[in-house]
Amino acid sequence: MRYLDECQIRDVAVGSAVLGTGGGGNPYLGMVGAIEAVRKHGDLQLYSIDELPDDTLAVSPFAIGSPVPFIERLSMTDEIMAAFKAMSRYFGREIGAIIPAEIGGVNSVIPLAVGRELGLPVIDADGMGRAYPEIQLCTFTLYGHQASPLAVADEHGNVSIIDTIDNFWVERIARPVAVEMGAIAGGVGFPITVGDLKEAAVLGTVSYAESIGRAIREAHDAHIDPIEAVLSATQGFQLFQGRIIDVERRIERGWALGDVTIEGVGDYADSSMTVQFQNEHLVAIRDGDILASVPDLIAILDSERGTPITTEELRYGFRVTVIAMPSDEKWRTPAGIELGGPRHFRYDIDFVPVEERFGAIA
Amino acid sequence: MRYLDECQIRDVAVGSAVLGTGGGGNPYLGMVGAIEAVRKHGDLQLYSIDELPDDTLAVSPFAIGSPVPFIERLSMTDEIMAAFKAMSRYFGREIGAIIPAEIGGVNSVIPLAVGRELGLPVIDADGMGRAYPEIQLCTFTLYGHQASPLAVADEHGNVSIIDTIDNFWVERIARPVAVEMGAIAGGVGFPITVGDLKEAAVLGTVSYAESIGRAIREAHDAHIDPIEAVLSATQGFQLFQGRIIDVERRIERGWALGDVTIEGVGDYADSSMTVQFQNEHLVAIRDGDILASVPDLIAILDSERGTPITTEELRYGFRVTVIAMPSDEKWRTPAGIELGGPRHFRYDIDFVPVEERFGAIA
Repeated sequence: MRYLDECQIRDVAVGSAVLGTGGGGNPYLGMVGAIEAVRKHGDLQLYSIDELPDDTLAVSPFAIGSPVPFIERLSMTDEIMAAFKAMSRYFGREIGAIIPAEIGGVNSVIPLAVGRELGLPVIDADGMGRAYPEIQLCTFTLYGHQASPLAVADEHGNVSIIDTIDNFWVERIARPVAVEMGAIAGGVGFPITVGDLKEAAVLGTVSYAESIGRAIREAHDAHIDPIEAVLSATQGFQLFQGRIIDVERRIERGWALGDVTIEGVGDYADSSMTVQFQNEHLVAIRDGDILASVPDLIAILDSERGTPITTEELRYGFRVTVIAMPSDEKWRTPAGIELGGPRHFRYDIDFVPVEERFGAIA
Repeated sequence: MRYLDECQIRDVAVGSAVLGTGGGGNPYLGMVGAIEAVRKHGDLQLYSIDELPDDTLAVSPFAIGSPVPFIERLSMTDEIMAAFKAMSRYFGREIGAIIPAEIGGVNSVIPLAVGRELGLPVIDADGMGRAYPEIQLCTFTLYGHQASPLAVADEHGNVSIIDTIDNFWVERIARPVAVEMGAIAGGVGFPITVGDLKEAAVLGTVSYAESIGRAIREAHDAHIDPIEAVLSATQGFQLFQGRIIDVERRIERGWALGDVTIEGVGDYADSSMTVQFQNEHLVAIRDGDILASVPDLIAILDSERGTPITTEELRYGFRVTVIAMPSDEKWRTPAGIELGGPRHFRYDIDFVPVEERFGAIA
């Protein structure tokens, strides 16, 4: 177990936004909740999974819905505590730990605050190693673990518990409930034992996010190139650099869909890149060639500051750098590619690891 | 307590279809489930509310969703049993009785089968004295009782428990869940004690439905006018007689919306009537004059057989008689009219009891 202070929580939030690949909501807001919890209860406690007994039951707290209205909400703690209570009441087993469902975006920081509020250990791991737009898209699903029973709650005090035959059905039912609750809701689900999580989770990812955020912060302090710092911390590839010339968006069933077009500068002049997203970035296309796709991670960074930009913050004129990072190996198995690869998002292409595809063209 | 045999269950089903005012699903299907239960377990037991202790907790089982796909489903018993189990698990209190949420349509017959399956007494009462298209539109709401916790379940084995701050929110959340589950789901909700139900329920309505069904059956046997028999059993008014010349329908968010136009015959020649519906009939308009509106009951009967026709069965060319019946007095209070009156359904008119409005024009 180690402690996370305010500065380290900020690092986790920034790093999570990189791993959020444009989605997962703005982690600076989740960070506010986590910092409040630190000020109220003292430093957060982060546990390595080996420090907890195998039979400890963990759950994942999260925000679910469209990230756009979330900008206006400071914290989801009340909603998530209500969901936690309802889920515990229905499930009827003692819950002993908290694990982030995803390390990307707000859902990586919310669990830190929730764990502190509940006095439960937070596990240094998650169920994606990135962010994904649908509940079933997590490594827990790959290892046969149920998201059910899963509870969602809203700011009014409404709760719904969802107990389904598989994780696809959880997504199908929870999404319209969250939309009805006002586009965003707090949720708690994925009751899984620590023993099972050792196999099914992506381990060490809170620390990994922290290391990315720290690299950006230290680059700022040392006046060195923060993009280089991110690439070094993530073993990522720089795909493109340029200026945003168009952003198209639409909201469908609570998802932020769209694409951003970037005009190249410097080495990339006379080229253009389009990044398509469904909450998270799905594919990066340069001059008609796909350079990277899910499950690998695509991030759009502010070219000067190296900080990540979420899809809802993308604006005409921004100078940005597009990078891609390898996904966890669990996503690169046939089952992982089937669950979270390009075909799931209706791209009729095979997944090629970014290091291969990018190396072949650039 | 008295027993209901197969013949009496058929009478309840037919009478419920009259009180279903065109909606509530086809009760002949619920009847199949109830008759199966009789054949398996023996005659059904119907309890007067005075025969049960005041602290007995009752719940209402029901089908929720669009009635159209329901035509293809024989019985909702499995779904409702799953919802019952989930709701009991979450609520954590012993359930000792079953009460129909509505006496109109399939939801008046389903509780007979469910009560028999569970070995629980079925109360001779309901929460509407008719059918209504939305969960919160019941006399239980008028007396401050919660529909929550309410569980819905589908044929696949998916369950959702909804626990909200009021009955409008139950409707808002349960409806899209039912749509997602395949347009129709089984539900259990409204945990209310017998003591409270004495005030909040419409009493004796299963027997009332049975008396209407019996009147139609006996009229057939005696070769007398079955329309007269229905009017006499319900203290209803004949509004119109004619031939259907047009039916417009659309499905919106799980509701069957539309209207039927009838060309007058006999005394009603040179007149036409339009009946507008949202699952149930809402208003009956003759030559531009509203003759009846919710909360009063409007039914469309086969002119020759006197049997009720649900909105999904209405077809061009049918010879029909439109009747209206007074609603329970609970619906005619200011609170009742506000909850279930014409303005709730976006008609900018005051409610006038059918006997007044009809008397003034006819």
